[in-house]
Amino acid sequence: MSLAIIAPNKDVQEWVDLFTEIDPSITIQVYPEIDDRQSVEVVVLWQHPHGILDKFPNLRLICSMGSGVDHIVSDPSLPRHLPITRIVDPRLTFSMTNYVVMGILNFHRQIFRYIKDQQRKVWDMSNPEIDITVGVLGVGELGGDVLDKVAGLGIKTVGYGNNPKTDFRHPYYYGHQLEEFLKSVNVIVCLLPLTQKTEGFLNIGFFKKCQKGSYLINVARGKHLVEEDLITALDEGYLEGAMLDVFHTEPLPESHPFWDHDRIMITPHIASITNPSAAAPQIMTNYKNLKESKPLINPINQQQGY
Amino acid sequence: MSLAIIAPNKDVQEWVDLFTEIDPSITIQVYPEIDDRQSVEVVVLWQHPHGILDKFPNLRLICSMGSGVDHIVSDPSLPRHLPITRIVDPRLTFSMTNYVVMGILNFHRQIFRYIKDQQRKVWDMSNPEIDITVGVLGVGELGGDVLDKVAGLGIKTVGYGNNPKTDFRHPYYYGHQLEEFLKSVNVIVCLLPLTQKTEGFLNIGFFKKCQKGSYLINVARGKHLVEEDLITALDEGYLEGAMLDVFHTEPLPESHPFWDHDRIMITPHIASITNPSAAAPQIMTNYKNLKESKPLINPINQQQGY
Repeated sequence: MSLAIIAPNKDVQEWVDLFTEIDPSITIQVYPEIDDRQSVEVVVLWQHPHGILDKFPNLRLICSMGSGVDHIVSDPSLPRHLPITRIVDPRLTFSMTNYVVMGILNFHRQIFRYIKDQQRKVWDMSNPEIDITVGVLGVGELGGDVLDKVAGLGIKTVGYGNNPKTDFRHPYYYGHQLEEFLKSVNVIVCLLPLTQKTEGFLNIGFFKKCQKGSYLINVARGKHLVEEDLITALDEGYLEGAMLDVFHTEPLPESHPFWDHDRIMITPHIASITNPSAAAPQIMTNYKNLKESKPLINPINQQQGY
Repeated sequence: MSLAIIAPNKDVQEWVDLFTEIDPSITIQVYPEIDDRQSVEVVVLWQHPHGILDKFPNLRLICSMGSGVDHIVSDPSLPRHLPITRIVDPRLTFSMTNYVVMGILNFHRQIFRYIKDQQRKVWDMSNPEIDITVGVLGVGELGGDVLDKVAGLGIKTVGYGNNPKTDFRHPYYYGHQLEEFLKSVNVIVCLLPLTQKTEGFLNIGFFKKCQKGSYLINVARGKHLVEEDLITALDEGYLEGAMLDVFHTEPLPESHPFWDHDRIMITPHIASITNPSAAAPQIMTNYKNLKESKPLINPINQQQGY
């Protein structure tokens, strides 16, 4: 039994060290130097080359190195019968929430207006606050925490998800109620999982349903957003501004219009970064649980794809 | 019995309307048009000309139009035997706290770094967070709320005040323990009341005791800060940056070095603005309580001066 790490764009030495520290007897192979495919029963993945997984005949478990699994389930050659696990890290939630709260408060208290005023030496005390109601798309681990923390600051909150919920702790809309949701909020935070259903969810049709003056924060995946539609929505006045941490192509190409748009604030996919020292033990727990035929921790729902 | 409003730099029409709406029989005189000084038993003040109060022989109550009373107690001719009341407004606390949380998170998540990176089209994912512990100077209504909300976001908090406290809900230092307090924090929020004791509290001696890389947020009063010492502290590396909402002279003069300093973010005294519709009823309650010899609401402690 061995474990293979397939994460071509990542320096994985820290992960190898952490795995070995937890279980010194473990055999680890790192892509592309995988000599013994037969022995691999566990793969640990981050943006693996699609089509590669059926080359492991004895594979029993697929682990994501992060909170998202869209990079895995989007592989058409994925062996559908195998369990997939993700990382659940309180620090990841902490980082994500505080990044989002920063974005929300910067809109609410108009930081970009005051930065411009300072540059022009303008002292303008008028209308210092924009009244906001924060809507979060996706109310799982991360979206739920954002809603709780924002409500804790005395700000109105509304959630939106795929399925009906009873007893959710915030006002909540689902599925076909998108229009009602968008009518009740003016800050929209995207924390949806990326699935076939949610790819391109943030498109011009969506933006046209937003309240005038609304603000968008996307911290989920670049592919939730139709990027050219955001430019149209800003230029035609459907949206007031946006803060984006994720993009179709990362790093964002130098020629991309987002860099220079004066109502788009961008950050380089840093809202929430997986911390190997929190994540590695979770993968090793599942490695051990698999060996001992115990239940896995943090498995995804295969039907839903997240 | 009449009420006089003395607030030379304020448009007070909204206040007059609100007072009259609550008690249509009230007689209101607005400075400088005060013809009948004899009848004035209540004054409502915002930055009144010092020395004027002893011209009201029948004065019985002094009301601040805001949360602060430093503009009143700093008047050397203040009749010391009279009660003074202030405004306590939950909306004022909401605004103050969310402004401060914005400032804290912008330091924690380095918004100014990412704004510069965007301008230069730089994609730099390294070290996306500065670890912070937030220290609040002044732990009254406002400081206490900031500490609670910041702790609610999972961020470490420490309070500092004038007097010893038992059972305070955050780690707490007082009086002579300033050095220990400053050693334990790297974000410092000033929410002290302005008194003779706290004027110039934020001076070069204070900054030299801060941890390297500390960040200052002043939302209390301009006079807490020795402004030239802040420039020295930033230029000599005692402090990393500052966000300021209050200044010695407001509006900040065009020639002031703060406007152009690239590690100072300034806003035009908008962190928390008194809302007349919340404040006027409190003053009218005290007007009525005075007439009916009932206890006043929100009186200040005359000994402490706040």
